[in-house]
Amino acid sequence: MKLITAIVQDKDTTKLSNAFVKANVRATRLSTSGGFLRSGNTTFMIAIEADRVQEVLDIIKDVSQKRKQFMVPPISLDAGGDHVGAYPIEVEVGGATVFTQEIESFYQF
Amino acid sequence: MKLITAIVQDKDTTKLSNAFVKANVRATRLSTSGGFLRSGNTTFMIAIEADRVQEVLDIIKDVSQKRKQFMVPPISLDAGGDHVGAYPIEVEVGGATVFTQEIESFYQF
Amino acid sequence: MKLITAIVQDKDTTKLSNAFVKANVRATRLSTSGGFLRSGNTTFMIAIEADRVQEVLDIIKDVSQKRKQFMVPPISLDAGGDHVGAYPIEVEVGGATVFTQEIESFYQF
Ligand code: NI
Ligand code: NI
Ligand code: NI
Repeated sequence: MKLITAIVQDKDTTKLSNAFVKANVRATRLSTSGGFLRSGNTTFMIAIEADRVQEVLDIIKDVSQKRKQFMVPPISLDAGGDHVGAYPIEVEVGGATVFTQEIESFYQF
Repeated sequence: MKLITAIVQDKDTTKLSNAFVKANVRATRLSTSGGFLRSGNTTFMIAIEADRVQEVLDIIKDVSQKRKQFMVPPISLDAGGDHVGAYPIEVEVGGATVFTQEIESFYQF
Repeated sequence: MKLITAIVQDKDTTKLSNAFVKANVRATRLSTSGGFLRSGNTTFMIAIEADRVQEVLDIIKDVSQKRKQFMVPPISLDAGGDHVGAYPIEVEVGGATVFTQEIESFYQF
């Protein structure tokens, strides 16, 4: 068995949980924070058979890898009351830090 | 040294914490969630000497293994206002997922 | 890569987070509790290159090791309304439990 630990942004947590359930992957969720700019992240712990590690890595990558997204910045008004700066801008969201470790013994009581 | 990680139901958390204190086992508690039907669980991390691992596994199994329990379901009323369905039913509670890993170095500062 | 897990008192959390940022060490923070008298602690998880482990251990030790501190106990009044027991006393604060483990594979998506 292997332990997979995956730290993802809060915004990807629900979608990733659903993807794990659909793939019959049992993941334990920890609310975590920190790591430079990543305040508000979630850590998943997954104990799984060695031959399913790649499948889990693929799910994590698919759902939470870094990608560009267009976002409309908050609107501000100029002196005359006109909307300014309301053009969508491209931002980077998502991203996952993932590592695997050996499990020596595994029990279900 | 070994690291024991144990994920148990919230309902068993207090009893398990007390059992660890009584056995002089130092456990760190994390509030966790998820894993199929187990929303609301707690994860214990225990760093311990290799020759005490079995003792800790025994404590976890004793306190939190899956067992049957009789529960009275919520009362509902039929059209005439009589209580129905208030018979105790047998449900399964508890259960623990536990795994052990190698610790390379251990420090107390 | 290695995984460093460090459990410290809540009172040392902010200072330790800042020290990690300053040293460019990416640490994920978990709110944890328990372990005998240490209710209210924080666990840091740090995945890092093997040749930086000692640097991280030094930071943790510098910031959070056990030390003596003078503290003024809460004031109580004797029968005549005079302050008693307001002399500073020496107490032990801080302390860290730290362990390192092997990481098999590490990914950033
Ligand atoms: Ni969060
Ligand atoms: Ni919980
Ligand atoms: Ni805390």
